[in-house]
Amino acid sequence: MSQGATIAANTRPYANLPPINVALFEAKARRGLSFDEIAKAIEKDEVWVASAFYGQAKFTEKELQKLAEILGINESELSGALGSHWWPNRGDLGPMPPTDPVLYRLYEGVMVYGPAIKAIIHEKFGDGIMSMIDCKVSVDKKPDPKGDRIVLAFDGKFLPYSKW
Amino acid sequence: MSQGATIAANTRPYANLPPINVALFEAKARRGLSFDEIAKAIEKDEVWVASAFYGQAKFTEKELQKLAEILGINESELSGALGSHWWPNRGDLGPMPPTDPVLYRLYEGVMVYGPAIKAIIHEKFGDGIMSMIDCKVSVDKKPDPKGDRIVLAFDGKFLPYSKW
Amino acid sequence: MSQGATIAANTRPYANLPPINVALFEAKARRGLSFDEIAKAIEKDEVWVASAFYGQAKFTEKELQKLAEILGINESELSGALGSHWWPNRGDLGPMPPTDPVLYRLYEGVMVYGPAIKAIIHEKFGDGIMSMIDCKVSVDKKPDPKGDRIVLAFDGKFLPYSKW
Amino acid sequence: MSQGATIAANTRPYANLPPINVALFEAKARRGLSFDEIAKAIEKDEVWVASAFYGQAKFTEKELQKLAEILGINESELSGALGSHWWPNRGDLGPMPPTDPVLYRLYEGVMVYGPAIKAIIHEKFGDGIMSMIDCKVSVDKKPDPKGDRIVLAFDGKFLPYSKW
Amino acid sequence: MSQGATIAANTRPYANLPPINVALFEAKARRGLSFDEIAKAIEKDEVWVASAFYGQAKFTEKELQKLAEILGINESELSGALGSHWWPNRGDLGPMPPTDPVLYRLYEGVMVYGPAIKAIIHEKFGDGIMSMIDCKVSVDKKPDPKGDRIVLAFDGKFLPYSKW
Amino acid sequence: MSQGATIAANTRPYANLPPINVALFEAKARRGLSFDEIAKAIEKDEVWVASAFYGQAKFTEKELQKLAEILGINESELSGALGSHWWPNRGDLGPMPPTDPVLYRLYEGVMVYGPAIKAIIHEKFGDGIMSMIDCKVSVDKKPDPKGDRIVLAFDGKFLPYSKW
Amino acid sequence: MSQGATIAANTRPYANLPPINVALFEAKARRGLSFDEIAKAIEKDEVWVASAFYGQAKFTEKELQKLAEILGINESELSGALGSHWWPNRGDLGPMPPTDPVLYRLYEGVMVYGPAIKAIIHEKFGDGIMSMIDCKVSVDKKPDPKGDRIVLAFDGKFLPYSKW
Amino acid sequence: MSQGATIAANTRPYANLPPINVALFEAKARRGLSFDEIAKAIEKDEVWVASAFYGQAKFTEKELQKLAEILGINESELSGALGSHWWPNRGDLGPMPPTDPVLYRLYEGVMVYGPAIKAIIHEKFGDGIMSMIDCKVSVDKKPDPKGDRIVLAFDGKFLPYSKW
Amino acid sequence: MSQGATIAANTRPYANLPPINVALFEAKARRGLSFDEIAKAIEKDEVWVASAFYGQAKFTEKELQKLAEILGINESELSGALGSHWWPNRGDLGPMPPTDPVLYRLYEGVMVYGPAIKAIIHEKFGDGIMSMIDCKVSVDKKPDPKGDRIVLAFDGKFLPYSKW
Amino acid sequence: MSQGATIAANTRPYANLPPINVALFEAKARRGLSFDEIAKAIEKDEVWVASAFYGQAKFTEKELQKLAEILGINESELSGALGSHWWPNRGDLGPMPPTDPVLYRLYEGVMVYGPAIKAIIHEKFGDGIMSMIDCKVSVDKKPDPKGDRIVLAFDGKFLPYSKW
Repeated sequence: MSQGATIAANTRPYANLPPINVALFEAKARRGLSFDEIAKAIEKDEVWVASAFYGQAKFTEKELQKLAEILGINESELSGALGSHWWPNRGDLGPMPPTDPVLYRLYEGVMVYGPAIKAIIHEKFGDGIMSMIDCKVSVDKKPDPKGDRIVLAFDGKFLPYSKW
Repeated sequence: MSQGATIAANTRPYANLPPINVALFEAKARRGLSFDEIAKAIEKDEVWVASAFYGQAKFTEKELQKLAEILGINESELSGALGSHWWPNRGDLGPMPPTDPVLYRLYEGVMVYGPAIKAIIHEKFGDGIMSMIDCKVSVDKKPDPKGDRIVLAFDGKFLPYSKW
Repeated sequence: MSQGATIAANTRPYANLPPINVALFEAKARRGLSFDEIAKAIEKDEVWVASAFYGQAKFTEKELQKLAEILGINESELSGALGSHWWPNRGDLGPMPPTDPVLYRLYEGVMVYGPAIKAIIHEKFGDGIMSMIDCKVSVDKKPDPKGDRIVLAFDGKFLPYSKW
Repeated sequence: MSQGATIAANTRPYANLPPINVALFEAKARRGLSFDEIAKAIEKDEVWVASAFYGQAKFTEKELQKLAEILGINESELSGALGSHWWPNRGDLGPMPPTDPVLYRLYEGVMVYGPAIKAIIHEKFGDGIMSMIDCKVSVDKKPDPKGDRIVLAFDGKFLPYSKW
Repeated sequence: MSQGATIAANTRPYANLPPINVALFEAKARRGLSFDEIAKAIEKDEVWVASAFYGQAKFTEKELQKLAEILGINESELSGALGSHWWPNRGDLGPMPPTDPVLYRLYEGVMVYGPAIKAIIHEKFGDGIMSMIDCKVSVDKKPDPKGDRIVLAFDGKFLPYSKW
Repeated sequence: MSQGATIAANTRPYANLPPINVALFEAKARRGLSFDEIAKAIEKDEVWVASAFYGQAKFTEKELQKLAEILGINESELSGALGSHWWPNRGDLGPMPPTDPVLYRLYEGVMVYGPAIKAIIHEKFGDGIMSMIDCKVSVDKKPDPKGDRIVLAFDGKFLPYSKW
Repeated sequence: MSQGATIAANTRPYANLPPINVALFEAKARRGLSFDEIAKAIEKDEVWVASAFYGQAKFTEKELQKLAEILGINESELSGALGSHWWPNRGDLGPMPPTDPVLYRLYEGVMVYGPAIKAIIHEKFGDGIMSMIDCKVSVDKKPDPKGDRIVLAFDGKFLPYSKW
Repeated sequence: MSQGATIAANTRPYANLPPINVALFEAKARRGLSFDEIAKAIEKDEVWVASAFYGQAKFTEKELQKLAEILGINESELSGALGSHWWPNRGDLGPMPPTDPVLYRLYEGVMVYGPAIKAIIHEKFGDGIMSMIDCKVSVDKKPDPKGDRIVLAFDGKFLPYSKW
Repeated sequence: MSQGATIAANTRPYANLPPINVALFEAKARRGLSFDEIAKAIEKDEVWVASAFYGQAKFTEKELQKLAEILGINESELSGALGSHWWPNRGDLGPMPPTDPVLYRLYEGVMVYGPAIKAIIHEKFGDGIMSMIDCKVSVDKKPDPKGDRIVLAFDGKFLPYSKW
Repeated sequence: MSQGATIAANTRPYANLPPINVALFEAKARRGLSFDEIAKAIEKDEVWVASAFYGQAKFTEKELQKLAEILGINESELSGALGSHWWPNRGDLGPMPPTDPVLYRLYEGVMVYGPAIKAIIHEKFGDGIMSMIDCKVSVDKKPDPKGDRIVLAFDGKFLPYSKW
């Protein structure tokens, strides 16, 4: 934990976020909280909370209240910026293809394995897609003697193509 | 199963694949085999097999033999095209961003949830990435009364950044 | 109707379609059928049928049979190319932004009115999207003394964003 | 309604709008008005009003007066910024393809169904386009037991191609 | 005039045109006809005819007949390719920005003088556009002792933006 | 005319212009002058003056003096910013393809009719181009009972290609 | 000189050239002629001749005759392909930025020294450009003990910007 | 010369330059000096000096001293910004393709004549390039009764490709 | 060494870096330290330290302490900005392809020699990649009478592709 | 070694290579030769030979003779295609950024470590570049108990920037 933690607002992926989101990250760093700890406080999952910090999801008023409390942020300021009138403008956090290697590897996963994934989805489910709207994302650690592994999972509803 | 199944080689994602790969797909369709059935025959996973059909992975000579057998393809032709001298040139199967909605949703997942995933990886593992080379991909069906769900998982080794 | 109608397969939007799709268009032209007439024969809507002709949707085996009949195309050839093993690879029919003025105007509609549409959707439905998978598209003529009008409608399911 | 509502002017789609437009959105949020309520006050439709808030349409002086009144904004400031000398510079609100899923689905609608829509327009109207200038856009809720539906309609004049 | 004139179909701007259009150009060259002479024969303007040769406009059946006659092309072949079932897919003739200097200068004209043209249109006509659908284009020679001048004119209908 | 007219300098096409150019537009709006009125005062054409306001042309010192006078701007400030040391950096006013429909239609004119225009230029003038440097642009109103028309004309010198 | 010299027509920069141009290059190689030798035969400069071989300039009928003679190509075939009906479609020979290092260095010269060149042109000539239409290009060898130097010169007419 | 000359730092090509470079341009304008006059003072060529003003080359400490003197700029400020720790980050001055016609014509020269230049270089020098690092650029006026000409020359070392 | 050294934060590659990184560069310049000297002080290699200065690697708290000491920067400010909560967002330092010739040559190395390097890697190691995560980079001077040479080496772990 | 080895010429990176280059690869595979074995036969390095196979370097006539011999290819065919009249058109082998992970990692190396490499080059050598023309590339295996390592080295001449 670092009482004097600051976030440079001119840097990616913060550059186009509302100032209040940068303040969320700074408060999180200063209080030394993990996303999981914050998630437990507002009864959500850590990946979802992180995505909301990045402006990719919408907190309810109640979640904003709890957030203000656990992070020590002024509640009315939080709600003034991210309240009922605010809606996420998703996906505008950085260049595509991503330049950061962590993100690029995910992008590469889509590029290299995408057609195979599509083929298996069609074989198992028929003509349709995995929803990225009704979808939950998780990131778990899987210990392994040869080096720990990351298990990244997307759990999304299958949506069959409508015909009319 | 369709004895007369054909694949139009001028169409994506087949357009830049070696003709033998298109023949693999045609043989698979004609024999009415699923990727899972082929995978069992060559002792691999269905997603990996599908990726290899799309030229994104390399069969061993032994796998090519079994493949020739189960699909009824001439073995020497298969091995002449995809044998020891052939190496995958990965990732060149279609446009990015993908136009196909199945693929685009995956791309959107990276774009929308990527920074959150990166943040959780750093929080749990430190400075490094999830390898897309030492990585296994799975696509599973999860029955759900409100509509079946797809669980797409990437199980990749965490690679810490070297410092020197 | 034109008995000798031909379609130049090297031209957009036919250039990357399977040859059988080009044959569908030629047969339609030669028989002088409208999409609506074909649609009635296979009990679907004209816009959906047109999208399927362009490889953007999947016919069932039964629909392929009826199609073969009404268009005078060899059924096994049709089913060999577009049967159960074939899945649409959607959206790859031409450049974006579109160069054709008919298509560009639609693109412009999204570009100019998109944020307004998004704002109204959020105001009326909350945080979520209009599904383009569970969506029906219609194109109707609305007579008007000052010049007939086109009514293009998308009727799509609202999908609320999942939180977890 | 939120008396302290603020809009971060550095975020999309507000980033390139005149400051007065951001003030319009803030005033709307603070007064807790819907686009429909504002629309009724200035005798226009909600989608059109939203598009004008985003700088995509031009208010008359009279509309600016009513707007100033209902939103409690200084009229001369409003008219000084958006008066007779101001003309919309349309379409420059965000990246194309859009990264936001609400907008992307519309873009995908054009990409996937565009050629089919074009084919039906030509079949029903001949060689020409649907005007996006003489066009009205509506977004309606259609209740449905399986989940409410959004009906997005473009009602545009057919313009035949001139020949000379 | 050149009896043996040929057009290399792999070259721009012919590369994506139907073979029949290339045949039109070859026939024109072999008969030594100017666009103006062909235009007179089918009672149209030279620029319009040239645009139709490039697949950017649609001939009526009657125009195709006259065209077949004056160019000595088989009428049924012409009508089989460009008859009632064929619709222009406009604008896909080459890269943008254009690499050819003749075309680039026009593009530069839009880029450099576009905002000034827009400003004058708004000042003289109000909020709206010059239609490129209801528009006639002419290219005339204006003799000048310091070097002949080209007068390129677009005569398009002003379309006021609809408000609703 | 609007005494309090302001121009938001962060918006296109003003965003990259010198502040003095924005001041020119504001002064023009406050004095309620048209480009034609300003043009008469400095003995130039309205389209040229508009292009110079957008930084696409260079005023002489004498023109700057007259401009200062008619617009009530400090002459030394004007000349300090746009005097003999300043040269236009042309064409950098907005994205290409343009998103604004007024500008896009011009772009579309080049894209759709460009090859036809090129063909006619070569037929009438030989191998060369229409200069966009030695070129005059005009925008005129042509009244028409079916709706007024805009006549946009480029009058440019023909430049034959040098051979050496 | 190589009697059996061939040019692979699928390779850049030949890929989009008319087959006759590829034949010109093959004939040149087979006869072992330099561009300078060919240039002397048709009374032109070597750089101009090379540009014409690449389809970037237009031979007169007389030049085609001499070319046919010196290269041993059938004259009517040459004139049938590149005769009076053929016009260069310039600039479409490869990607920009160029990938080839020889070409890229020239591109880099424009990118790095372009603004300085522009500044000097304005200082010495005023507001205008160096014509690339009325321009001669030369490539000369300048012996130097530290390594021979290439002198690449563009000799183009200064065109002052028109004001009107 | 203009004592009050200013440069708008938000405009291209100054926008990404260090403020000190903008100050160099302002001082140059205020003192009414040409690049040639400055060049003589620091014993360099005018094109090189202009390129250094644009941040494309590096002054020595001694050159900075002379520059400070002739331009009346604080020497320590100059050396603090552009001293031994500063290295040019070349080529990032504006868009490519350039939008400005002066720059575009140079770009067009590379695009149109590049392959011819490459062919002549190979014919005269073998496999290698013209260095753009060991290269001198000049811009000279060549009087001509039909209109003065600009001679732009690149004098660069030929570098043969290494083989190993 | 230059006591008054400053870095213009609006210039590439500093433009998107946290202000503290610019302060690192300024302190380094003011103290006249080389990357090697700093590297020795924190027991790392010079290339790694330079990459960390550019925000491409993460210092430990201990390294930040030593850095603060040797550069005379406030330690808590350094640790507040780049402490445990900060993670590199790699690769976003400038355009690709790079415009700077130093960087472009490296890019060209990948473009020209990449396929050969890939072929040799496959021949010597099999199907896999050279890790850029577990990789050390060095830049050494190799004196040579014909001109000193730079030896740039990447020493990366071979990662075989997983099969599953 | 595989007597029947074939290379699909429609696939990357072979797609734009002359057919003779594809034949080189097929002959190499059929004879079971490594690049190193071929390199020894023609007295060159393996990386250089691989780059020449990919059309990125030029064989001498003597090297072509030896190549014909060791690969069992017709010498006159080889020399007819790649003889003295043929010059490499470098760098056009695939998309940039590369989609293949082997190539992408190299690209990422330039993107992530490029600015650091540039900084060290300037610190050690001054203002200039590492030549990619006078440069040798090597790929070596470095055994390591934790997994073998690849050492990729570029040994290029330092070229100081000319000043004039």
